[in-house]
Amino acid sequence: MVKKISNKKTTRRAFLKGTAAASGAILGASTSAHAAGDPLITEVQDWAQSTGDGVDATPYGLPIEFESDVVRRNVEWLTADTISSINFTPIHALDGTITPQGCAFERHHSGAIELRKQDYRLMINGLVDKPLVFTYEDLERFPRENHVYFCECAANTGMEWAGAQLNGAQFTHGMIHNMEYTGIPLRTLLNEAGVKPSGSWVFVEGADASSNGRSIPIEKALDDVLVAFYANGEALRKEHGYPVRLVVPGWEGNMWVKWLRRVEVMDKAVESREETSKYTDTLADGTSRKWTWVMDAKSVITSPSPQSPIKHSKGPLVVSGLAWSGNGAITRVDVTLDGGKNWFQARLAKPGESKALTRFYLDIEWAGKEMFIQSRAHDETGYVQPTKEQLREVRGLNSIYHNNCIQTWWVKETGEVENVEIS
Amino acid sequence: MVKKISNKKTTRRAFLKGTAAASGAILGASTSAHAAGDPLITEVQDWAQSTGDGVDATPYGLPIEFESDVVRRNVEWLTADTISSINFTPIHALDGTITPQGCAFERHHSGAIELRKQDYRLMINGLVDKPLVFTYEDLERFPRENHVYFCECAANTGMEWAGAQLNGAQFTHGMIHNMEYTGIPLRTLLNEAGVKPSGSWVFVEGADASSNGRSIPIEKALDDVLVAFYANGEALRKEHGYPVRLVVPGWEGNMWVKWLRRVEVMDKAVESREETSKYTDTLADGTSRKWTWVMDAKSVITSPSPQSPIKHSKGPLVVSGLAWSGNGAITRVDVTLDGGKNWFQARLAKPGESKALTRFYLDIEWAGKEMFIQSRAHDETGYVQPTKEQLREVRGLNSIYHNNCIQTWWVKETGEVENVEIS
Repeated sequence: MVKKISNKKTTRRAFLKGTAAASGAILGASTSAHAAGDPLITEVQDWAQSTGDGVDATPYGLPIEFESDVVRRNVEWLTADTISSINFTPIHALDGTITPQGCAFERHHSGAIELRKQDYRLMINGLVDKPLVFTYEDLERFPRENHVYFCECAANTGMEWAGAQLNGAQFTHGMIHNMEYTGIPLRTLLNEAGVKPSGSWVFVEGADASSNGRSIPIEKALDDVLVAFYANGEALRKEHGYPVRLVVPGWEGNMWVKWLRRVEVMDKAVESREETSKYTDTLADGTSRKWTWVMDAKSVITSPSPQSPIKHSKGPLVVSGLAWSGNGAITRVDVTLDGGKNWFQARLAKPGESKALTRFYLDIEWAGKEMFIQSRAHDETGYVQPTKEQLREVRGLNSIYHNNCIQTWWVKETGEVENVEIS
Repeated sequence: MVKKISNKKTTRRAFLKGTAAASGAILGASTSAHAAGDPLITEVQDWAQSTGDGVDATPYGLPIEFESDVVRRNVEWLTADTISSINFTPIHALDGTITPQGCAFERHHSGAIELRKQDYRLMINGLVDKPLVFTYEDLERFPRENHVYFCECAANTGMEWAGAQLNGAQFTHGMIHNMEYTGIPLRTLLNEAGVKPSGSWVFVEGADASSNGRSIPIEKALDDVLVAFYANGEALRKEHGYPVRLVVPGWEGNMWVKWLRRVEVMDKAVESREETSKYTDTLADGTSRKWTWVMDAKSVITSPSPQSPIKHSKGPLVVSGLAWSGNGAITRVDVTLDGGKNWFQARLAKPGESKALTRFYLDIEWAGKEMFIQSRAHDETGYVQPTKEQLREVRGLNSIYHNNCIQTWWVKETGEVENVEIS
């Protein structure tokens, strides 16, 4: 195998604090290695002496076996069974902003069903001039749009209300994904049916056994809601609602009804199970806050994090994470290394896009000492992500949903990372 | 199964030509269907009476079985074997702009190799102050960027020089993909090594048996070239160069070296096999045009197309396709339905992004008659995609590479589509 020639020496890279940084290995002698006899590789590698897989090996490819731990995971004790449950995007192991469908968070209320395009129907009924039923092929004939949006479960980070619980960004913040959706504005289909003046809500439901019905104000339904059939360029996967799901930008994932079968225009909300006993926020006095649809600005450091520890000694370190807001674009993310005493403005990989994940980086010189790292998102409305204490002052400890608090990771001298709460 | 209740009737949708359009099915009686007894579904469907797959069913998911034809394909006669060959993105069946890694075009010169992160090394040598060797973990410590870029094989559409050949957008234009890449600017690593004043080229090579060496001018190497390790948010797939590939935005795919092992700074180009006997453009007089790296502005209609025929009768039809330019952003796409007599400006799904695929749509009212459909891309430099005749005037018929001509599809009255050449 590769002969180890790496000698760590100080180079002239400078980082945040302006100190020299160890990185790369200095090769003893400069050589012209494209000629025979590459001095680096003293033995010819297996992969360089034989051919690899042909292009017919993977009509549809999967990740390489070495990445087999980068998968969605379920927390077994969290729900009674896996049919009505959640699994989590491995955000600790991803970078960039797009979430591949294959490892994108999913939530089912009665399991992922198998619905063929030819059996698919979408009904628009209720307070409309003309009730309509669309086949899949009908839908394909309407003008389409493309948008990258995040989809976050209202329960994401829900276990953190009572203190640091789950040890990993995948489990504390992985009920989220970010995909490029292609679909038809729901507005187009509602206009086709003709919404009557009394129509002030729509009730949307899926074709699965749970039906997962939710009420959406007509203003939102006529704004940016999509009836989507593609995600990241290809057909929705079975577990993401094939062949058609609703996309409700910036609003809680439970409203993004999968296997969408019906949209009824109504003059009031249905007050269904999914918007009364579930998906409301229990306050300190036991009363419930309802209609809390928008996912407020939030962020999390994905690396380093408990599942993505620092594997090297002190020196250059990339601190990276994700930020998002259901109210618009992320404009700024701050990162602290000392539990909130000093904040540094992180670098956004791209200007924030409305209701989509934004990747941020802070390139630091790690001193090899313990750190308490946090990130804090700002959105275009001026909103700033709150601390856990600030949220508890308003909401108490009984809530499950809509926890967008600042998250703390304790980075130890060893590079290991733990989910902690500091005050 | 679903009881067929669909009755096609004219509704009030108006399209391009302002005529009424058939779409959707009018339901006889308005109903409140969220109550028991949905009038649409007279029999309860299988999927509504039982639960589906649990969240533990797919730690890493694949497309649903019904989409099993949306895969990369190889053209068997095109190359001597599948080890040094190409497969094609199923662009006729995709929408949006992102290409999922699993079905993204790949080209190998000696097969896709299996290279573990712990065995990975990248050498920077030649005309530098300090030759360096980086491990994968070293690379992870440098500041990263994210960019969506297209990667197009120079031979894409190459079979069309001599006339209409392959019957399908996947085969004529599918040697392209578009992914969100995360990586380190090559500039950062070159600066780390220190390029000597005489360094005017870099020679890049892969760790596979072919090594696929290519020369790149230092100006490009110091501009936007990335040393990438993620695509669409996750690790590169094996067939896309795991763990590290080069990304050379806007330039031909052959330069995007996979399993990148070495970058040598030189004072001249190597004139390797891959840039002399291959990847040059044979002109009419038999001489070769070399250093034609940039992929000029180009576009293709992906639907309707031979593999994506029209399946309905006359009325509303979504004409959709992709446009791109190696010189910057797409600013406009025109579509003709009559072989170039009249052109309509297509709708861009998003403002064009530099060196990335742009999705365009033209929502038309199809008369149910034959059409000769073409698209024509414009980029931010003012360049307009040429006709096949214009290219042949300059290049003759002997070229293989860099065919960015306007493509013609003959849409028949039956809705079937054929690759044709018109003059």
